[in-house]
Amino acid sequence: MNNICLVGSGGVGTIASLVLEKSGRAKVTAVLRSRYAIVKEKGWNIDSIDHGKLDGWRPFRVVPSVKDAVFPDDPPYDFVVVTTKQLPDHYCVAELIRPVITPGHTVVVLIQNGLDIEVPIIQNYPGSSVMSAISMIGSQTSGENTILQPGTDVLTICPHFHDGLPHERAGAANAECTFTDDMPRARWQKLLWNGTFNTICTVMRMDVGELQSSGGRETLLIPAMWEMYAIAKAAGHPPPEEIIDFYAYRLPNDCRYRPSMLLDFDHGRPMELEVVLGNPLKRAKELGVQVPTLGTLYEQLKMIKWRVEQEKAEKKINGA
Amino acid sequence: MNNICLVGSGGVGTIASLVLEKSGRAKVTAVLRSRYAIVKEKGWNIDSIDHGKLDGWRPFRVVPSVKDAVFPDDPPYDFVVVTTKQLPDHYCVAELIRPVITPGHTVVVLIQNGLDIEVPIIQNYPGSSVMSAISMIGSQTSGENTILQPGTDVLTICPHFHDGLPHERAGAANAECTFTDDMPRARWQKLLWNGTFNTICTVMRMDVGELQSSGGRETLLIPAMWEMYAIAKAAGHPPPEEIIDFYAYRLPNDCRYRPSMLLDFDHGRPMELEVVLGNPLKRAKELGVQVPTLGTLYEQLKMIKWRVEQEKAEKKINGA
Repeated sequence: MNNICLVGSGGVGTIASLVLEKSGRAKVTAVLRSRYAIVKEKGWNIDSIDHGKLDGWRPFRVVPSVKDAVFPDDPPYDFVVVTTKQLPDHYCVAELIRPVITPGHTVVVLIQNGLDIEVPIIQNYPGSSVMSAISMIGSQTSGENTILQPGTDVLTICPHFHDGLPHERAGAANAECTFTDDMPRARWQKLLWNGTFNTICTVMRMDVGELQSSGGRETLLIPAMWEMYAIAKAAGHPPPEEIIDFYAYRLPNDCRYRPSMLLDFDHGRPMELEVVLGNPLKRAKELGVQVPTLGTLYEQLKMIKWRVEQEKAEKKINGA
Repeated sequence: MNNICLVGSGGVGTIASLVLEKSGRAKVTAVLRSRYAIVKEKGWNIDSIDHGKLDGWRPFRVVPSVKDAVFPDDPPYDFVVVTTKQLPDHYCVAELIRPVITPGHTVVVLIQNGLDIEVPIIQNYPGSSVMSAISMIGSQTSGENTILQPGTDVLTICPHFHDGLPHERAGAANAECTFTDDMPRARWQKLLWNGTFNTICTVMRMDVGELQSSGGRETLLIPAMWEMYAIAKAAGHPPPEEIIDFYAYRLPNDCRYRPSMLLDFDHGRPMELEVVLGNPLKRAKELGVQVPTLGTLYEQLKMIKWRVEQEKAEKKINGA
């Protein structure tokens, strides 16, 4: 039985904890911040294409903070699974998880978007194994304690670090889980989506179908994807070229899907800008790759971020 | 006494007709489309930094269409002054003014933004003099029959065509009117403003102060201005380089000014995209100038245009 601490139980994390518990080989302690009280009381209502409808589902334990996930009489955590958003200018994941790490034992698994997210973990816990995973699940929280998962869960996972890596892996029930030997390539492939659809939909305040129908798919999205591809290629990890057309034409034009960054913008929440676009742009600069479209989008998103923060500050002043 | 037909009596045109009438040397017949009935009945209420407050002011005549501006018993029009927006994909100015043109006599004066706006007029009326002017006035219509003019009227005017050009000019009262000998340069200079502030404020839905405060002035606005400058330079008409910093830092950061394109967007009206950005981009392509920021902004504005038209179409369907 694997003792697992899962940090950040939102759309991605809750389904991950459900998959882990359903495997029969894991006990999950889930750390929930904003939704702790309601989930402690009522559990999650899950509506999932993979797992059906569940009412009031809870993992083994829910706790309100990482500190509260420390149970001195229990065995140490075998895995810490991080499914928070990647917001390096808001908090540091490596510091966040320190209380639940047993050096040399606990394996850190980052199920998160973006580039270079494993670097601070490896720096902080050189004796720990670090794995990262990218999730193509489109699950979202809804209302106070509901999780909607309309699309199949596809997880690509890979170790970044081999020292002491346990070779057995928790069996994944009802989830397509691919063990990849080229995580950088898989991450760049995910960035072809996250760095373009997410960013353009947010700047334009358009859902995926609107972006595609507006003409922007051909004039903005695909050029931006090729820029991301050019960085990936210069970095030595190009995804297959066909992925660009596949992503650009996969969803129908009446698709009302709002990418996670646009949802964060809609709700005035922090956006995952740095790992999804800032880090690839740093790489582009180092490698001398021209990325005019992505560069403009990045500056526009920083302006949007400025405005979101302004509005938040004004609300505080008016509320005080 | 000059007999003048002014087409498009909005913020710019109404102040122009007021200046012309105040000179004592012009009788203005103003063509108003949407506001004809109210202005016919009540006149304009004008609140102007140059002309003070006027209640119920009307030019010599107001008419609801260009056809209605034809008075067969009157002398021909000496000048047709066009102050409509430049929307080549909605109407053709050259066709619009045909009823009021007396070939070989009427001088056409375009007080409008954009590049290459004189070309179709010269093609259609080779015997007429064509002048164009750029206006730095920030006047706007407000409510049903009010004109607000918070900033001074600065007009730069120049002939595009010398055949039969009358050298006397209507004296301008209370308006700084500069007669330039390099209209292309003056137009490019105006584009340094219109092609950047207008377009970025519209894409970002920010007023001038927000754009400046958000950090976007340095990361997006000034680079876009330098791109516009590079096209102007390649075209042989560079404005003075100092204009870029002058424009970028002229207005205070708490300035709530919404450029005309943003106001058009706010009200679901057509935007002057083609003459302000489309034509400069065509020129950039011909001249081999790299304009990545302006190019991205143009594609984003076409997406916004698509959405405005979608929403209009939906309203029609729902209203029917």
